Amino acid sequence: MMKLSELVQVFTAYQGDRCRMNSAIDPDIEQISSLEEAVAGSLSYVTQPGTMAKWIEKTPAAALILPLNDELIERAQAHGLAWVAVPNPRLAFAQAIAEFYQPYRLPSQVHPTAVVAPDAQLGKDISIGAHVVIPENCTIGDDVCIHPGVVLYPGVSIGDRTTLHANCVIHERSQIGADCVVQCGAVIGGEGFGFVPVREGWFKMHQSGYVVLEDNVEIGCNSTVDRPAVGTTRIGRNTKIDNQVQVGHEVHIGENCAIAAQGGLAGGAHIGNRVILAGQVGVSNRVKISDGVTATSKSGLHEDVGPGETMSGFPAIPHRVWLRAATLFGRLPEMQKVLSRLERAAKTEQ
Amino acid sequence: MMKLSELVQVFTAYQGDRCRMNSAIDPDIEQISSLEEAVAGSLSYVTQPGTMAKWIEKTPAAALILPLNDELIERAQAHGLAWVAVPNPRLAFAQAIAEFYQPYRLPSQVHPTAVVAPDAQLGKDISIGAHVVIPENCTIGDDVCIHPGVVLYPGVSIGDRTTLHANCVIHERSQIGADCVVQCGAVIGGEGFGFVPVREGWFKMHQSGYVVLEDNVEIGCNSTVDRPAVGTTRIGRNTKIDNQVQVGHEVHIGENCAIAAQGGLAGGAHIGNRVILAGQVGVSNRVKISDGVTATSKSGLHEDVGPGETMSGFPAIPHRVWLRAATLFGRLPEMQKVLSRLERAAKTEQ
Amino acid sequence: MMKLSELVQVFTAYQGDRCRMNSAIDPDIEQISSLEEAVAGSLSYVTQPGTMAKWIEKTPAAALILPLNDELIERAQAHGLAWVAVPNPRLAFAQAIAEFYQPYRLPSQVHPTAVVAPDAQLGKDISIGAHVVIPENCTIGDDVCIHPGVVLYPGVSIGDRTTLHANCVIHERSQIGADCVVQCGAVIGGEGFGFVPVREGWFKMHQSGYVVLEDNVEIGCNSTVDRPAVGTTRIGRNTKIDNQVQVGHEVHIGENCAIAAQGGLAGGAHIGNRVILAGQVGVSNRVKISDGVTATSKSGLHEDVGPGETMSGFPAIPHRVWLRAATLFGRLPEMQKVLSRLERAAKTEQ
Repeated sequence: MMKLSELVQVFTAYQGDRCRMNSAIDPDIEQISSLEEAVAGSLSYVTQPGTMAKWIEKTPAAALILPLNDELIERAQAHGLAWVAVPNPRLAFAQAIAEFYQPYRLPSQVHPTAVVAPDAQLGKDISIGAHVVIPENCTIGDDVCIHPGVVLYPGVSIGDRTTLHANCVIHERSQIGADCVVQCGAVIGGEGFGFVPVREGWFKMHQSGYVVLEDNVEIGCNSTVDRPAVGTTRIGRNTKIDNQVQVGHEVHIGENCAIAAQGGLAGGAHIGNRVILAGQVGVSNRVKISDGVTATSKSGLHEDVGPGETMSGFPAIPHRVWLRAATLFGRLPEMQKVLSRLERAAKTEQ
Repeated sequence: MMKLSELVQVFTAYQGDRCRMNSAIDPDIEQISSLEEAVAGSLSYVTQPGTMAKWIEKTPAAALILPLNDELIERAQAHGLAWVAVPNPRLAFAQAIAEFYQPYRLPSQVHPTAVVAPDAQLGKDISIGAHVVIPENCTIGDDVCIHPGVVLYPGVSIGDRTTLHANCVIHERSQIGADCVVQCGAVIGGEGFGFVPVREGWFKMHQSGYVVLEDNVEIGCNSTVDRPAVGTTRIGRNTKIDNQVQVGHEVHIGENCAIAAQGGLAGGAHIGNRVILAGQVGVSNRVKISDGVTATSKSGLHEDVGPGETMSGFPAIPHRVWLRAATLFGRLPEMQKVLSRLERAAKTEQ
Repeated sequence: MMKLSELVQVFTAYQGDRCRMNSAIDPDIEQISSLEEAVAGSLSYVTQPGTMAKWIEKTPAAALILPLNDELIERAQAHGLAWVAVPNPRLAFAQAIAEFYQPYRLPSQVHPTAVVAPDAQLGKDISIGAHVVIPENCTIGDDVCIHPGVVLYPGVSIGDRTTLHANCVIHERSQIGADCVVQCGAVIGGEGFGFVPVREGWFKMHQSGYVVLEDNVEIGCNSTVDRPAVGTTRIGRNTKIDNQVQVGHEVHIGENCAIAAQGGLAGGAHIGNRVILAGQVGVSNRVKISDGVTATSKSGLHEDVGPGETMSGFPAIPHRVWLRAATLFGRLPEMQKVLSRLERAAKTEQ
């Protein structure tokens, strides 16, 4: 339990002193809730501005997080509701959850059922769960947490404070940075899909390279990051990857990117910094996506994209063009009718 | 081995007394087979009505399941073939398989290599396979079957008669109902993809909520169901989810839905009851899909959809419109030619 | 370390005696590298012909693999660079890696933490890793390598020299051929998605069939291959499947196919021989794809496709038509404007 004013101090530390609150009320906050599930004692925030007025009037929450909007603040004030107004309400919501939520952490021990090679270099205060396998030539940093059922192959290094969730697999030679999270079932460093067509079928190209995850990278559940034939597949600092994403061999992803669920990056794709790919996006072989690009869901990037562009569709075109074209797609039948009528008329005239 | 007449009794119990058979022959049924693989002793059924006549004439099967169609029945009768005619042949096929097939079940024991916390509440007649991990504060119902390599996180509850297949993972606080099936490699309750953009990159939004699977839910192999920042991600009673489906944080799915392989539901999507999503469908953030909607394969639902609609394409439009528009897409080059010709002609006239 | 001339012998053995090299220089090759990462001692090859001249002039590599192109050979010769020219440079690159790379192999033993049923039939020289589970009625061939955390269900057979990577699962009755590779997290033989709609919801169709992988098949990380209600799901000899591919129940895939990441084959699809499906392709229920078909990325094959066709788009149409139509899609707004103008003009005339 915290006083709302204590939370305001937390918000201010990160968002600056424009954060302010209803000075008349300083309720106890007992939990952080969505608006739909708010009860007495909840702190909530309004995600959709259009619906704010409604929630201000009827929420049972102890307090609301608002944007810096005088009209909304006045309305909340008029209803006698506790509020805190901040430059970035969603960030404040995340900050509030961080104050209340205690993430689960394995106890600091090497579980007796784990199979750890005698030559493993283990850092301080590590947690290694049941049935984990760490073979020869691996290095595990300080405060690393490896959940049950994780399998490492030989020659893996794991940086400080990194968490590997249950049943994920880290293949040989992978280098995982510090403060990374690999979620359940993800496979890092599996063999890239390399087969050269020959008369009898396929000649397997061995994948002698390895994967590098730089610091602070997250890889979602059941995602796969392949190692290349030679060299590295690399994911840059602070890049976050959602569930069921496929990162092909020799892909390079820059820093601070976000790739939503079920995206697929084909072999050799190069992704710049601060790139956002929405759900189910595909990027073709060896395509280069520049810094700051956004691709909307289900788009397919077949060609290089310049910096800062927002792309949509398949094959992807600039978003503003796509919006208009996509609307017209459903009107193709009527366009075709008009066209036929005009064509017939033109023939009659001749 | 069963007499065909015994199977007819099984069909009748579920499908009513319109089920009938060739009263002249009551063969022994030894196995249930597809038409392509039928042998003497097989019971088969005709999936594609257009090909029925052919199969009636040449199948070596002991008997065929037919629809209630007088012409087909007479033809089978004329060929001296044993048949059973029912209102729902595919259902009868499923009923017949259920009579013959004995699904594999682990022996009722806690395998000595399983790691089970002392405080776990275990029901009667449970089967817990090798290398399973059940940590503190978990509740396992009666007749639950947990296959090898499954990992639970703390605070999970599993309802009666539920099956968890090999190497799936159930995250902290998840509530799995009765009679559920979670297939191999699925991850229930992983962290939702929540990162707030800030100057230095991303501020992680902790995911303090949890996942609820109501009774009779199935989750396919390697599918992922994320938990939300606050509140619940919920999948309703009787809903069936295929392999490699992504269910984002705070998604709510109603009852009796079916979601085919590789579908993706982005965060906060709300799906009604009896919704059918075909393969590789995407639903965008916070979109509401009403009861009884069907979306055809690869469609992308960007906006709310009203009850009972059938949608196709990306962005999705009503199916009947999409069918005509999709046909015209391939004719765009010729439409463009006609249009240019007409435009040139119009200019000449001026 | 090898002499370049020794590698040329390797290339010649497979590619024939048109392979030749700079007879003036026979450097020691110490590693195989991409051009971007080549150092002294590297052998590299030029993937993109347009950039070859540049690389010939500035690479620090000890030698380059070139195509049989006189101009490039002369240019390399003029620069005093060691080179080898071959009919298939990418194949030569794969052959060279195969000479240098020593894939990791588990030690030949049954790890003491593996749980192996007493009736298991185990071949010679097998490697069974930590925490593997092999239940009753399984047959494991010679030289099989099963990595940690793999779970078999009863009645599975694994052919000689096959490798099962960490945490994959092989369901009951599956028959895996010789020289196969199943990558991490893949699930072979899971239950097909079979539910018959009934008044109360869904009647589960039990999946009494099984999966057959013929010899030399590879299945990528986290891919899923379902077993059918009756009969088999079959993947033909030499077919290679990438990560996160879904193969539905009763699918039949021919020989020598390649299916790229995140493809989805719905139930009962039939795929011929030498079919290539690029990334994120979908094939609908019961569709038949003939020998030699190629489908480009993200295409959706809703209808049968004849031999040798290249298909694109959704629904898929012949690639050459799609290319032109896709270009016009972005020009729909301007087509619509022209059309409206012509229509207005026509009305004015009347």
